[in-house]
Amino acid sequence: MGALSCEHIIDIQDLSVEDIYIILDTARSFKEVNERTIKKLPTLRGRTIVNLFLEPSTRTRTSFELAAKRLSADGINFSASTSATVKGESLVDTAQTLDAMECDLVIIRHAYAGSPRILAQNMRAHIINGGDGKHQHPTQALLDLFTIRENLGRIDGLKVAIVGDIVHSRVVGSLAPALRMLGAEVTAIAPRTLLPPCPEVLGMQVSTSLDDRLGDFDVVYLLRIQQERMERSPFPTLREYARLYGMNTRRLAQMKPGSILMHPGPINRGVELTSELVDAAQNLLLYQVNAGVAVRMSLLYLLLGGDQDGLAA
Amino acid sequence: MGALSCEHIIDIQDLSVEDIYIILDTARSFKEVNERTIKKLPTLRGRTIVNLFLEPSTRTRTSFELAAKRLSADGINFSASTSATVKGESLVDTAQTLDAMECDLVIIRHAYAGSPRILAQNMRAHIINGGDGKHQHPTQALLDLFTIRENLGRIDGLKVAIVGDIVHSRVVGSLAPALRMLGAEVTAIAPRTLLPPCPEVLGMQVSTSLDDRLGDFDVVYLLRIQQERMERSPFPTLREYARLYGMNTRRLAQMKPGSILMHPGPINRGVELTSELVDAAQNLLLYQVNAGVAVRMSLLYLLLGGDQDGLAA
Amino acid sequence: MGALSCEHIIDIQDLSVEDIYIILDTARSFKEVNERTIKKLPTLRGRTIVNLFLEPSTRTRTSFELAAKRLSADGINFSASTSATVKGESLVDTAQTLDAMECDLVIIRHAYAGSPRILAQNMRAHIINGGDGKHQHPTQALLDLFTIRENLGRIDGLKVAIVGDIVHSRVVGSLAPALRMLGAEVTAIAPRTLLPPCPEVLGMQVSTSLDDRLGDFDVVYLLRIQQERMERSPFPTLREYARLYGMNTRRLAQMKPGSILMHPGPINRGVELTSELVDAAQNLLLYQVNAGVAVRMSLLYLLLGGDQDGLAA
Repeated sequence: MGALSCEHIIDIQDLSVEDIYIILDTARSFKEVNERTIKKLPTLRGRTIVNLFLEPSTRTRTSFELAAKRLSADGINFSASTSATVKGESLVDTAQTLDAMECDLVIIRHAYAGSPRILAQNMRAHIINGGDGKHQHPTQALLDLFTIRENLGRIDGLKVAIVGDIVHSRVVGSLAPALRMLGAEVTAIAPRTLLPPCPEVLGMQVSTSLDDRLGDFDVVYLLRIQQERMERSPFPTLREYARLYGMNTRRLAQMKPGSILMHPGPINRGVELTSELVDAAQNLLLYQVNAGVAVRMSLLYLLLGGDQDGLAA
Repeated sequence: MGALSCEHIIDIQDLSVEDIYIILDTARSFKEVNERTIKKLPTLRGRTIVNLFLEPSTRTRTSFELAAKRLSADGINFSASTSATVKGESLVDTAQTLDAMECDLVIIRHAYAGSPRILAQNMRAHIINGGDGKHQHPTQALLDLFTIRENLGRIDGLKVAIVGDIVHSRVVGSLAPALRMLGAEVTAIAPRTLLPPCPEVLGMQVSTSLDDRLGDFDVVYLLRIQQERMERSPFPTLREYARLYGMNTRRLAQMKPGSILMHPGPINRGVELTSELVDAAQNLLLYQVNAGVAVRMSLLYLLLGGDQDGLAA
Repeated sequence: MGALSCEHIIDIQDLSVEDIYIILDTARSFKEVNERTIKKLPTLRGRTIVNLFLEPSTRTRTSFELAAKRLSADGINFSASTSATVKGESLVDTAQTLDAMECDLVIIRHAYAGSPRILAQNMRAHIINGGDGKHQHPTQALLDLFTIRENLGRIDGLKVAIVGDIVHSRVVGSLAPALRMLGAEVTAIAPRTLLPPCPEVLGMQVSTSLDDRLGDFDVVYLLRIQQERMERSPFPTLREYARLYGMNTRRLAQMKPGSILMHPGPINRGVELTSELVDAAQNLLLYQVNAGVAVRMSLLYLLLGGDQDGLAA
C-alpha cells in the first residue's frame, strides 16, 4: 500500500487518482523536512539522478537538483551547451548511454513533445517529464494541486479558471486534466487567438471574457505569456492583453472571498499581473515554488521504490 | 563570543574590526583542515548554498564551491547562460524564488554595483558579495588581509601600496577601507587616468610614480589590468604601462627587506609583472589562492550560525 | 603489492603491463559496485577531484563525474565557457591555482596535445588525460581493454582490426600501443587519406581494404568519423565511406565466429555502422560505456593511494 502504480511521470493521465493523492500526501512530509535547519535525509544515498535539460530553465532544474541533494542522491547535470548533442548524438543513443552508466532516474526537459516517452522506451531508468514542448509539464501540475489542496482544503468540487496563453501552454496540458480527474471544474479564459482550435477536446469550459464570471472561481490561475514560444503575436500589444486579461487590484476585489490567485512563474510584471498585485499575491506564488521542491522529492522517493509507510517509519 | 555582528557580507564597511578578526582567526583553523588528506567536516550538512554567478569567474566561484563542499553543504550553481535571466526574470524574483526553495546562503557575482544589497532586502537567506561591478569584492579583501597577517605577523601600522587600475577595481573598493580599519596606511599608485576623479574620498594617499617611494612599503599590491572593464584605453600601450607601473627584477630589488608582493590574480604576464617575477613571487600569490578557500569556509561557517568556540570543540 | 608504479595517467606508454592488469582487475570490483542499488563507497571522502574539460564531452566527463561521486569524492566541474580562460589565464596559472586550492586530482580534456603533461609539470595533483587533441585518450583504451578481456577472456594473442579515421584519432594513439603491450596484433584499416604518413611507426600492420581479411580478426574496432576534426574532407562522400569501410549485416556475417564489434561512441548511424547493426552490436557498445565508469573509478582509487588489497578488505 502507498506505492505508485506507474514507473514514469510523463503524462499526467498515466497517473491514477490514488497515485496523485499518494504523491501529494508524501510531499507533505518532505515540505516539513525542508523547513528544518538540516534539510537532508539519507533515503536515496547511492542512487544516480540525471538532470537532462535541453532547454533553459532555472526554477524546475534547481528544484529537482535540490530535491535530489536533500535526499542524498548523486546528481548529474546535462545542459544543452555541454552535452554531446554538439556531436550530433541522437536522443536514443544518449538514453542508452545514461542507462549503461547505471543511472536510476532521468528528468528531461526538451523542446519536442514526446521526447520523454522516447527515453522511457529506450532505458531501464525511471523518467520524469520536466516539460516537453507545448505538451505536458506534469510536475508543475502536481505542485499546483498540492498548493490548492493545502490552501483550500480540497480539490474536489472547486471551480478553477485558467487564464491566458492556453494554446502554447504545457502547464495547461497537465493541469487541466489533473484538475478534472480530482473533481474540479475548469474554465479556460483567453482571447480567441490563444485558445486551441477545438477547445472542447480539453474538456474545459471556454470563455473569452475575464470579467464576466470572476466572482465564481475558487482559483484563478494566470498563465505566463511566453513570447519566446509564439511565432506571430496573437494580440496587438502586451498593454492591450494586460487591460483585458491581466489581474489588477480592481479585478482582485471582484474575486470570490477566500479564493486564490496562482501563477507558475516567472511572472512578466505588468502583463499577467500588475506589479503591485505581484506583491499582494506573492505569498501564494512563493508557496508554489516551495511546494515544488517537496513534490519533486516525493516523486523521486516514490519512483525509486519508496512508499508512504516507509517514510513514516 | 566569537560570533559575527552582521548577517551578510556585502560591503566591507558593514563589518566591525572585531568581526574581521573573528573571520581571520576562524579561517586559520580551516586552512589546517584543507592541508589534511581528508578535507571534509560535517559542519554544514543539510544546508543549501547557491552560487549565483552572473559574470564569468573561475577562482572565486571554485573557491566558494570547494568551501561549501568541504563543509558538507549542498551547493547549487547558477550561471548566466542556464539561468532564468534568459526569460527576463528580475533579480528580485530570482531572490524570492531561491528563498522559497529554502536556500540558506547565496553568493552573488553581478555586473551591477548594489545587486547583493537587492538580494539581501528581498530574501531571508544570508548574502555574500562575490564581486559587484566596480564596487566591492569583500571576500578578496579578507583573504588578502589573512595573507598579510599570516606572512607579516600583523596589519596595524603597515604601509601598503596599491598599484594600477584603481578606478575600475572592486578589489580596492573593499581592500583599501579594510586596511585602514585595521590601522594600515594605504597609498594608491597609478597614472592619472586610472585614479578616481576625487581620490581624497578614498582616504588613501595618492602618487603617480611607482619608483619614488618603493622602498617605503611593507606590501606592494598590484592590481589586474582589466581590459574587459575599460571603455577607452587609459594608457597608450600595455608596454608603456608595464614600463612605468609593472614590477620587474630591478624594482623588486628596491623594495624594503621583508616586504611582500601581492596580486589578486589572474595575472597578465608581462603587464603587471614580468614573467620571471611571476615565478619569484609565485609562492605568495598562491598563498592568497589557498587562503581564499579557508576564508570562504570561515564566512560560510560563521554566517550560518557557527562561532569560533564551536569549531574548537 | 597491487599499487600503480605511476603518478599520472597521461600517455598509455607510461604504464607498465602490470599497472594495466592492476587497473583492469580493480575495475572488476567497481563494476560490481555499480550494479548494486546503492552505488556508493566512502573510499575517497574528502578528496577533491576537478573535471577540467575545455572541449565539449558528454560521455567521458559524465563517466568521470559519476566515478568520483560513487567514490564519495568532492567534484568540481570546469568547462570552457565558465572558466577563467575567458580572462586569458594560461594553463600553467590555472594548474597552480587548482593546486593552491588543494585539489588532489585533475582530469583534463584539451584541444592541444601535450596539455596534460604541462599540468603534471606544474602541479602536485595527480593528472588523468581525458583526451588531448589527436594525441592520446588513455582511459578510453583502458575501458576497451577491459571490455575485450571480459568478453573474450584474454588479450594476449588476439588479432584486432582498427577501422577508419586512424590519423585524427586519439583513441588509436592510446589503444594501439596498449594492445601491443598486452600481446595483441593490431591492423589499421582505412583509406590512404586517413592513414598517417608513416604508418610503420605505429607498429601496426596496415590495409586499405576492410573486406580482404575480415574473417581473421577477433575484434573489429570501428573509429568515429570525426568531421569536426577534419580540415578538408578525406573522402568524396560519407556514403562512399560507408560503402567501403562501414559495417553492415553482410560484413557482419563474414566476421570470425565469436569475434566482437566495438566503437568508442557516439556513433554516426549509417556511417561507421548501418542503423540496424547498431541495434545488433548495441550490447557490446553499451558494455564499453558501462566499463568506462568502472575503469575510471579504478583509476581514481588507485592514483589516490588505494591498492588492490585495500579494496578486498
